[in-house]
Amino acid sequence: MPTVVPSSVQCLARACVLGLAVAASLTAHAADPRARALGVPFEGKPGALNAITDVAGVTVGQVTLIEDREDGHKVRTGVTAILPRGRDSFETPVFGGWFALNGNGEMTGTTWLEESGQLEGPVMLTNTHSVGVVRDAVIAERVKAGGADASGYWWSLPVVAETWDGHLNDINGFHVKPEHVAQALRDASGGPVAEGNVGGGTGMVCHEFKCGIGSASRVVALENAQYTVGVLVQANYGIRDTLRIAGVPVGQHLRADRVYTDPALAIAGDAPNGDTGSIIIVVATDAPLLPHQLDRIAKRAGMGLARMGSYAGNGSGDIFVAFSTANAAAAKGASRNEASFVGNDHLDDLFNATVQATEEAIVNAMIASRDMRGEGGHYANALPHDALVRLLKRYGRYERAQSQGR
Amino acid sequence: MPTVVPSSVQCLARACVLGLAVAASLTAHAADPRARALGVPFEGKPGALNAITDVAGVTVGQVTLIEDREDGHKVRTGVTAILPRGRDSFETPVFGGWFALNGNGEMTGTTWLEESGQLEGPVMLTNTHSVGVVRDAVIAERVKAGGADASGYWWSLPVVAETWDGHLNDINGFHVKPEHVAQALRDASGGPVAEGNVGGGTGMVCHEFKCGIGSASRVVALENAQYTVGVLVQANYGIRDTLRIAGVPVGQHLRADRVYTDPALAIAGDAPNGDTGSIIIVVATDAPLLPHQLDRIAKRAGMGLARMGSYAGNGSGDIFVAFSTANAAAAKGASRNEASFVGNDHLDDLFNATVQATEEAIVNAMIASRDMRGEGGHYANALPHDALVRLLKRYGRYERAQSQGR
Amino acid sequence: MPTVVPSSVQCLARACVLGLAVAASLTAHAADPRARALGVPFEGKPGALNAITDVAGVTVGQVTLIEDREDGHKVRTGVTAILPRGRDSFETPVFGGWFALNGNGEMTGTTWLEESGQLEGPVMLTNTHSVGVVRDAVIAERVKAGGADASGYWWSLPVVAETWDGHLNDINGFHVKPEHVAQALRDASGGPVAEGNVGGGTGMVCHEFKCGIGSASRVVALENAQYTVGVLVQANYGIRDTLRIAGVPVGQHLRADRVYTDPALAIAGDAPNGDTGSIIIVVATDAPLLPHQLDRIAKRAGMGLARMGSYAGNGSGDIFVAFSTANAAAAKGASRNEASFVGNDHLDDLFNATVQATEEAIVNAMIASRDMRGEGGHYANALPHDALVRLLKRYGRYERAQSQGR
Amino acid sequence: MPTVVPSSVQCLARACVLGLAVAASLTAHAADPRARALGVPFEGKPGALNAITDVAGVTVGQVTLIEDREDGHKVRTGVTAILPRGRDSFETPVFGGWFALNGNGEMTGTTWLEESGQLEGPVMLTNTHSVGVVRDAVIAERVKAGGADASGYWWSLPVVAETWDGHLNDINGFHVKPEHVAQALRDASGGPVAEGNVGGGTGMVCHEFKCGIGSASRVVALENAQYTVGVLVQANYGIRDTLRIAGVPVGQHLRADRVYTDPALAIAGDAPNGDTGSIIIVVATDAPLLPHQLDRIAKRAGMGLARMGSYAGNGSGDIFVAFSTANAAAAKGASRNEASFVGNDHLDDLFNATVQATEEAIVNAMIASRDMRGEGGHYANALPHDALVRLLKRYGRYERAQSQGR
Repeated sequence: MPTVVPSSVQCLARACVLGLAVAASLTAHAADPRARALGVPFEGKPGALNAITDVAGVTVGQVTLIEDREDGHKVRTGVTAILPRGRDSFETPVFGGWFALNGNGEMTGTTWLEESGQLEGPVMLTNTHSVGVVRDAVIAERVKAGGADASGYWWSLPVVAETWDGHLNDINGFHVKPEHVAQALRDASGGPVAEGNVGGGTGMVCHEFKCGIGSASRVVALENAQYTVGVLVQANYGIRDTLRIAGVPVGQHLRADRVYTDPALAIAGDAPNGDTGSIIIVVATDAPLLPHQLDRIAKRAGMGLARMGSYAGNGSGDIFVAFSTANAAAAKGASRNEASFVGNDHLDDLFNATVQATEEAIVNAMIASRDMRGEGGHYANALPHDALVRLLKRYGRYERAQSQGR
Repeated sequence: MPTVVPSSVQCLARACVLGLAVAASLTAHAADPRARALGVPFEGKPGALNAITDVAGVTVGQVTLIEDREDGHKVRTGVTAILPRGRDSFETPVFGGWFALNGNGEMTGTTWLEESGQLEGPVMLTNTHSVGVVRDAVIAERVKAGGADASGYWWSLPVVAETWDGHLNDINGFHVKPEHVAQALRDASGGPVAEGNVGGGTGMVCHEFKCGIGSASRVVALENAQYTVGVLVQANYGIRDTLRIAGVPVGQHLRADRVYTDPALAIAGDAPNGDTGSIIIVVATDAPLLPHQLDRIAKRAGMGLARMGSYAGNGSGDIFVAFSTANAAAAKGASRNEASFVGNDHLDDLFNATVQATEEAIVNAMIASRDMRGEGGHYANALPHDALVRLLKRYGRYERAQSQGR
Repeated sequence: MPTVVPSSVQCLARACVLGLAVAASLTAHAADPRARALGVPFEGKPGALNAITDVAGVTVGQVTLIEDREDGHKVRTGVTAILPRGRDSFETPVFGGWFALNGNGEMTGTTWLEESGQLEGPVMLTNTHSVGVVRDAVIAERVKAGGADASGYWWSLPVVAETWDGHLNDINGFHVKPEHVAQALRDASGGPVAEGNVGGGTGMVCHEFKCGIGSASRVVALENAQYTVGVLVQANYGIRDTLRIAGVPVGQHLRADRVYTDPALAIAGDAPNGDTGSIIIVVATDAPLLPHQLDRIAKRAGMGLARMGSYAGNGSGDIFVAFSTANAAAAKGASRNEASFVGNDHLDDLFNATVQATEEAIVNAMIASRDMRGEGGHYANALPHDALVRLLKRYGRYERAQSQGR
Repeated sequence: MPTVVPSSVQCLARACVLGLAVAASLTAHAADPRARALGVPFEGKPGALNAITDVAGVTVGQVTLIEDREDGHKVRTGVTAILPRGRDSFETPVFGGWFALNGNGEMTGTTWLEESGQLEGPVMLTNTHSVGVVRDAVIAERVKAGGADASGYWWSLPVVAETWDGHLNDINGFHVKPEHVAQALRDASGGPVAEGNVGGGTGMVCHEFKCGIGSASRVVALENAQYTVGVLVQANYGIRDTLRIAGVPVGQHLRADRVYTDPALAIAGDAPNGDTGSIIIVVATDAPLLPHQLDRIAKRAGMGLARMGSYAGNGSGDIFVAFSTANAAAAKGASRNEASFVGNDHLDDLFNATVQATEEAIVNAMIASRDMRGEGGHYANALPHDALVRLLKRYGRYERAQSQGR
């Protein structure tokens, strides 16, 4: 299998774009509005960046692979790395939990995550057929990083998740390579998170619109403390008909430009068949939560998804992981440790924040994505901003002049 | 503990009401509109009754206990029985599955349901402090019914679920008795299902409006077959603020009449504290589904709930059970059996129908409920129909003249 | 249904025996040897009592109901209460977890136990058809106890488990009453635990020998700390053939006296059919463990069971609950709490102790039980001690002169 | 990283051995006794080969990588492929289930296995750090195989499991390559299964003895039908002290040759620390079982493991998968399918067979393995056959002259 060799590299926020052709449209990206700047109403109070990186210490690195190859294949894929403790993720786990609303997908490492209550190392997002290479490459990076555990004895069960970009991407070309993983881990940083056609989300589609990476956050006050919940999604799920944005039945109005509706582009065996995509949702918080409480947080991600009109179709891998950056010392696992945690009776605002931030992160992914043409002539158009605004106004849901959290 | 002695019994549809005082308002009930007749828009095609009883064979029996006792206590509770195969439920199990979105509640029998993939006998709904009496009474009824398994060897692990009606009901008076269970089982029938302040739902509250029992159904065409999905809810969950009906942020407008807002009625330790109620959702279908597929159906009930604005608060027992009335012979469990089932790739419309019917069943429960005053002077007012219609119109979501499925 | 009226009450250790007829044999009981005094070899170091009550604070109360009724029915049943924090169990939860190896049984309250990570109130053991009355009675006792939470808002989801004693007991007579629950809770104390035909285990049978309640414990040193793991079983599982004690294939030698082998006693529909009993295993520890770690502990109980020759037959409700008495303050659930816990890498000795103590508790239950004749002329004989000793010697597994932990 | 280039290839049963140095000892292997030929007593009736391949249609392919490299590193690893339907596994799934007794390990594909109830493609076993390369290579092989689903839309979530061979193998050399996966799949066949130091088990250690691949089977009569249960293990778990074989406390006698006991070989951070290995258990049957029933079968594998003395240490990835080769047509997943299944009440013999075959497969793995020296001078000696026989005799457990199922 031929390797993707980048003809040029443009770095934009946390997304490193390979391939000149697309650089122009992407550089315009940073100035583009996010969902709330467009007028979409949301509940709850976002953090400063309205992104997962509002949770102190969380860093994100993305490598975007876009290339029209000489052999005719179109590369539209990438890797997104979320590091719970930034650089320290190599040495210090976080408490974590997970939930599969519909398990038609892969998230490696969950068996140990569930057993141990800990997430060791980063969460990686990529395409379905590259989970393996990303997984082993994370181990290799860990081995290179060395440190106290030179034997490679731990951090050998990385968490790598995927959604299927085979509509737009030459997924069977296996274009994600170990060096892309290394780069995503190395480049990870705080600050604004690039959204849309970037990283693992490069070739994704949701509700039959172009989709990809999105993020959002919420700030919650709990007695004397303030906590942040941040969400990052790699969204690739859903059918057009059921799409709701802020309760507006958008999918019932915007019926044009549905994926695959151009019969000339139809390929045998490749017709859309219900909700065959997937969505990976990563929830981060600095609230001190125990592992079983993080399982509960992960479940709420699915409630935000439900508000978008998803019914978690059989073909959809709707898998969610949640972690808490608190309790760094405890997560080291001495024979006796002390962990802080929020009592069960005080979790409601964190649950609500998770639902809210998930909903907004998905809309952000749709708003940030751009039209894309890819493998086999397939295409996916983005949700038209002007049409969305018209519908919000028609249904009395337009809210002007919100800060977009950047 | 004193027993409730009915001073009179008024039977209305499947609800037998004990206590003259409330008979008048309840007899008006049958003529009242359901959600879609009021103009609430829903997706999907309902069955003839728009109720769980659209699934052939399913019967429902409800006993409503309403009494202002001489000792000052107020009884506002009851029992609802759902029999998957009507009378035959005593002999023939159904394939079943379940899911706890937030397990702050009780549903007995789930350990065996999960292990065996079968639901044996009825599903019973009541208040939190009466689960035990209902459970043992179901066994006693089974023993009385006799039959091939006179040893009582099976059907000894009944499924009984609850929500907490202690706000309006004298829950610590333990007023549900074995004879109420017997009556609910005996009176169970097909046909329209009484909604609102009836059966196990008599004293329930949702989104700080009076609530209770609700039902709805969907019809799904699958190649040459047509299947029905029916839902019945006992709804007692949620806070006012987040209530959405058909995507309209109803809870953000209707802020009056919130439960507990009259400070004169506040009781120490009894203040509302987030989402402390619960919801039990029962999903029935005649589609032939295997046990693990019914677990999947059960999960989708939570997505309908999410669309109402729930975030599954810590105090909420959001527990769902699903069963299929198909495969009666196979469920008998010979050494070799043949079961039909819908292939995984064909489940999407059933998933979607579950989400849709759950959403409508909850709104039906709210629309059918009536203002109630109960224990300790506590009260809960019903969602005002006219205010709801005004909001639907304001948000462009009013749909006139729908058949209400009766 | 007629109520059992005790003609006399003999209290023996933690077992209150009702009915004169059996008093004699039971008073002899305390002097009887336990498994290790008989020469059965076990691994690991037991606590002072070799019982669950070695875990500081844990108390056990048992009510034994044995009566030959005038109507001809035989009562052979009871209730066992395990209070994790003794009296304080009414106010302060413990961290807890559970596991169903084979879920053909009932343990109420597990949905909330799993969700919250906490066990509120006692663990109650009784027969299959009395779970409901015990459950509601626990709530009633909680209501009576009053206290800060007078609303009855919590501790409304009691943990009550069962095994089926219908072979020896008139299970459909529903002889367990609320007052028996009250008594078991009231009488609960530390000290030696009565074993065999007592409490919830009164009418139980395992490996086709008379069985019932058994207990054992292990002490584990972990760096500078010492922790205790205590186990209590209500054992009613298994077939004769596969019984192994200390690795010796006892069941393949002791083939006489198998339950039901007297054809004159056979009752239609009541023939033994594989492993149709059940076992409830309660694991207590003072080691500070988080809820997800207690799920792990609970799983190990099944490994001790496996060593006895069980294969967890379809008819067996093999359900295990584990709790930690540490972290009392944290379990109160303030908005921020501090919990101690043993790091995952240091759990092995606690896992091993759980396996070991489970194995010994089961053997103790068999050794302590006495021949019983009951309902319908059914009988179950106890494991003959002398035959066991002979087999241990034959297989080189006899170990003399062990302290029996009393 | 340099690729392993085989200097020669010796094929032995289903194991292809690369590297001349070890060929001699391995060729002697086929004539070696299995556990029951040595005199170890087991319960139940094995199939003709006493191997997983007794289940009609199941094929096994193994690639063994053993090389002393010029750079000083020692390669002691490989890949084992189990194909549920042989060649047809590429097109037709099987019903499947799984269970993690202790999830300190990886088995990819389980989220979809659990959701769908189906296992698509092969089960692959390898070392911890090669799961990714094996996973993606399985997809690549599927893509190459082409067929109806040329889009690669399914079979993209392969099941790949691991145990950690870093004690003997240069695990961070990543020596397993896609071509080894292709070879294991291509060479898979029925017939006797090579055991011991082969395939994925090449560098494994259990109870501090050299270990690896083992297999066994049981035949079960159920009314008019006969079914086979076959087990294959990749065993790498456990400490010496607790080892029991046929109930004999072998580990308490054979204390020499414990792994790591030569202080000269100790490496910082690499000391043995309890049960840090893992075991993957694959259970195949031709009995028609539904997915939720196969979850139940998978759980019983852990009971066989428990009988060996395992307590499922924190460091052990004890993960089990079970599948049924029946219902080939149904597994294709049309809109309506018919599946046969054994009623729950008839599962006991299949449960027991699973426990028995697991126990024997592990002992077979130990008996077949040979002393090995590997990476960093580490070594692991095999269980000495003569010492085992002496202990069996001492404890009255020696059974002579059994057919070994070959």
